[in-house]
Amino acid sequence: MDTSHLYRLNATEAARAIAAGEVSAEQVVRSCLERIREVEPAVLAWQFLDESHALAQARARDADRAEGRPCGPLHGVPVGVKDIIDTADMPTEDGTPLHAGRTPDHDASVVTALRAAGAVILGKTVTTECATYTPGKTRNPHDGTRTPGGSSSGSAAAVAAGMVPLAIGTQTNGSIIRPASFCGVYGFKPTFGLIPRHGILKVSRSLDTVGLFARSLDDLALAVEPLVGHDERDPDTKPRARMPFTSTLASPPPMPPRVAFVKTPRWDRAEPSTREAFAELAGALGDACEELEMPPSWAEAWEWQRCIMEAEMAFNLDAEWERGRDRLSPALRQQLERGRSIAALDHQRALARIPRLLEALEDWFARFDAIVTPATPGVAPPAETTGDPSFCTFWSLTGLPALSLPLMNGPGGLPLGVQLVGARSRDARLLRTARWLQGRLAG
Amino acid sequence: MDTSHLYRLNATEAARAIAAGEVSAEQVVRSCLERIREVEPAVLAWQFLDESHALAQARARDADRAEGRPCGPLHGVPVGVKDIIDTADMPTEDGTPLHAGRTPDHDASVVTALRAAGAVILGKTVTTECATYTPGKTRNPHDGTRTPGGSSSGSAAAVAAGMVPLAIGTQTNGSIIRPASFCGVYGFKPTFGLIPRHGILKVSRSLDTVGLFARSLDDLALAVEPLVGHDERDPDTKPRARMPFTSTLASPPPMPPRVAFVKTPRWDRAEPSTREAFAELAGALGDACEELEMPPSWAEAWEWQRCIMEAEMAFNLDAEWERGRDRLSPALRQQLERGRSIAALDHQRALARIPRLLEALEDWFARFDAIVTPATPGVAPPAETTGDPSFCTFWSLTGLPALSLPLMNGPGGLPLGVQLVGARSRDARLLRTARWLQGRLAG
Repeated sequence: MDTSHLYRLNATEAARAIAAGEVSAEQVVRSCLERIREVEPAVLAWQFLDESHALAQARARDADRAEGRPCGPLHGVPVGVKDIIDTADMPTEDGTPLHAGRTPDHDASVVTALRAAGAVILGKTVTTECATYTPGKTRNPHDGTRTPGGSSSGSAAAVAAGMVPLAIGTQTNGSIIRPASFCGVYGFKPTFGLIPRHGILKVSRSLDTVGLFARSLDDLALAVEPLVGHDERDPDTKPRARMPFTSTLASPPPMPPRVAFVKTPRWDRAEPSTREAFAELAGALGDACEELEMPPSWAEAWEWQRCIMEAEMAFNLDAEWERGRDRLSPALRQQLERGRSIAALDHQRALARIPRLLEALEDWFARFDAIVTPATPGVAPPAETTGDPSFCTFWSLTGLPALSLPLMNGPGGLPLGVQLVGARSRDARLLRTARWLQGRLAG
Repeated sequence: MDTSHLYRLNATEAARAIAAGEVSAEQVVRSCLERIREVEPAVLAWQFLDESHALAQARARDADRAEGRPCGPLHGVPVGVKDIIDTADMPTEDGTPLHAGRTPDHDASVVTALRAAGAVILGKTVTTECATYTPGKTRNPHDGTRTPGGSSSGSAAAVAAGMVPLAIGTQTNGSIIRPASFCGVYGFKPTFGLIPRHGILKVSRSLDTVGLFARSLDDLALAVEPLVGHDERDPDTKPRARMPFTSTLASPPPMPPRVAFVKTPRWDRAEPSTREAFAELAGALGDACEELEMPPSWAEAWEWQRCIMEAEMAFNLDAEWERGRDRLSPALRQQLERGRSIAALDHQRALARIPRLLEALEDWFARFDAIVTPATPGVAPPAETTGDPSFCTFWSLTGLPALSLPLMNGPGGLPLGVQLVGARSRDARLLRTARWLQGRLAG
């Protein structure tokens, strides 16, 4: 059997084939490693990759299966993990020279959950500096002169380039949805507080959210289900029953979905081709789509997000500032400097806006299943920046579940994501609405 | 039957007698109202009291019983409620002219729980200005020239003066333990997050704690049990099974208790008679008591508490500052001015100290059932201030359960409380240890 193309399997296909004994985890991982050797020199998605350790994990999973031990839903599936997420068996360097050579003692909760589900932690993917705005080395797989987006740059690029079917990232402003849009993969930022963050570099307690990249909606559902949970060490998580992602996604919507097309007060940043594409999309959806306008006062939300993020970054990167600020990028230094001067009063005021926004949004979600809006103002810009996160900011502030669907192409055929935003905790239904939307647009 | 002395019953006795049909709720309430008419002119514990409404509630409770409707553990027992706690049927004025005439639309969660337990909300007790340091009108029942302590001034004084067997208060720094000490009643500040705070004037989210005043440990157990619970509108509460206060208090300690006598870095403020009394107490406990010293670095904890309290006060009293600061006391204005200039970085740093202190304290509570320390540096000072809260500050910051036991008398025979502090969430055991301590000292 020629197993060299197994890297093309998505996570659902790979998990099924491994579970059925049609292929081994080792064969899948070996194919991914070959693919990486081929494309990594141009993409530079990996911060750390030890082929032999990846293969050893795969062989251990194959042994589990051979010996009849229980197999999880991701048994043998390789996963890339953003390099701000602690792994007990690989370095975690947070994209900063200040943390070079850092070797954590424990896995982050999300890594523990991945391993319990049977996943092979293939390696660590490139992050921007401390998961903020200064780019790492990764290039966009569709155009090496352009950014993959950030901060989960390597995770998005690795999935897009076929190096791994699944990758984990985090979002504080636009760090999952934006790179997913630029790289043309599925990105999923679940509801704030769904996936525990213990063992992950803290940027902003009130905003940081763990999420995923994949090449299909099924993969997102398969992979997110075992990651949702409670961890006392992340006070923003809570005990909850398993959320039925895969079964909900497999079922048809019980009522014809309706979506709201929302331009947000940052619409002036949308490129002409983006405006055109979304006008077409709204037209194609017909009666199922209605344009909604945000109240003018919500234009301040971008400022509230900045206030919260920078105030909390200043706290979480306090030691780095105190002991090594000369080795931080000028942009991060400036952010931290601003953050350090924010008043506790303004920080608390900004935080208090979130429940009020969510209350106002309840009306919308009583009438609509999801909000449709661009994931990014346009396609990936040149690699000097990670692009504009402002189309993600409002949904990061409010902690709503968001998807980027790789359904559009902009100038030069480069990918452009359709962002779909759902009501808080209705994540599984959001995936189902996304499937419906894809069907409608394909039809 | 002469029912004029029913006001002398404690809550447990009153609840039992009412449940047994030996007395009616109306008779108990009527006796309390008569007692109030007699002593209130000197004590001034009440901010609002409508006798006819109190009697109407009592008659309704008697009708419940007569008609065989289920009766709660506090059925017919009158309770005083601090006037920062919303009541839908009485004004709630928060001790500030800025809120004069304020008539809330809903009961606070704790009032809902009290009513569900059968309590009669007798009236609203005097609070200091916005539950901070500027005194209200209340005087110490033991000496009218002295403070009852604050901020729960009226609640402590009303219970001490026999006007009501139970009262509800709140503590952010020393607002339950201190007035309990000065007034010679039992005060109980449960673990942070046990009793929901929805519907109560917010001073500091990270510190505000609801608690109780009573004339016995049994009363505290009886009354706190139905108040503990989860309210989604107070994000610091969580779902939990009913805590077995009364049954734990009724049982003997399974092992001989051991307590740690802790002086704290503020010991230099303790009056000579307090030092002497506590040296005697430690001596009387013998082997069951060991003196422990706090690490010198914990001396900063008083500054961390101040930082958190003032930063959060500035946020919670933002509207009062913006729209009416000329009607605030100069002391509160100064506090708010300081709070408004605190950096978000310092606020977050101070908050981050709390879990580290709790971790360090775990060692202590592995070896000791409780910490013994004075509730106040000495007896109640003159009425110009509410006294020094600094012996309560550390236990407010750490959110540990604390009791003030009326076991001592200082100069002039004035009361002085013994503070007993327990491990987080071990509130019921703390009450049991308190009973043991009382027995040891009486023996």
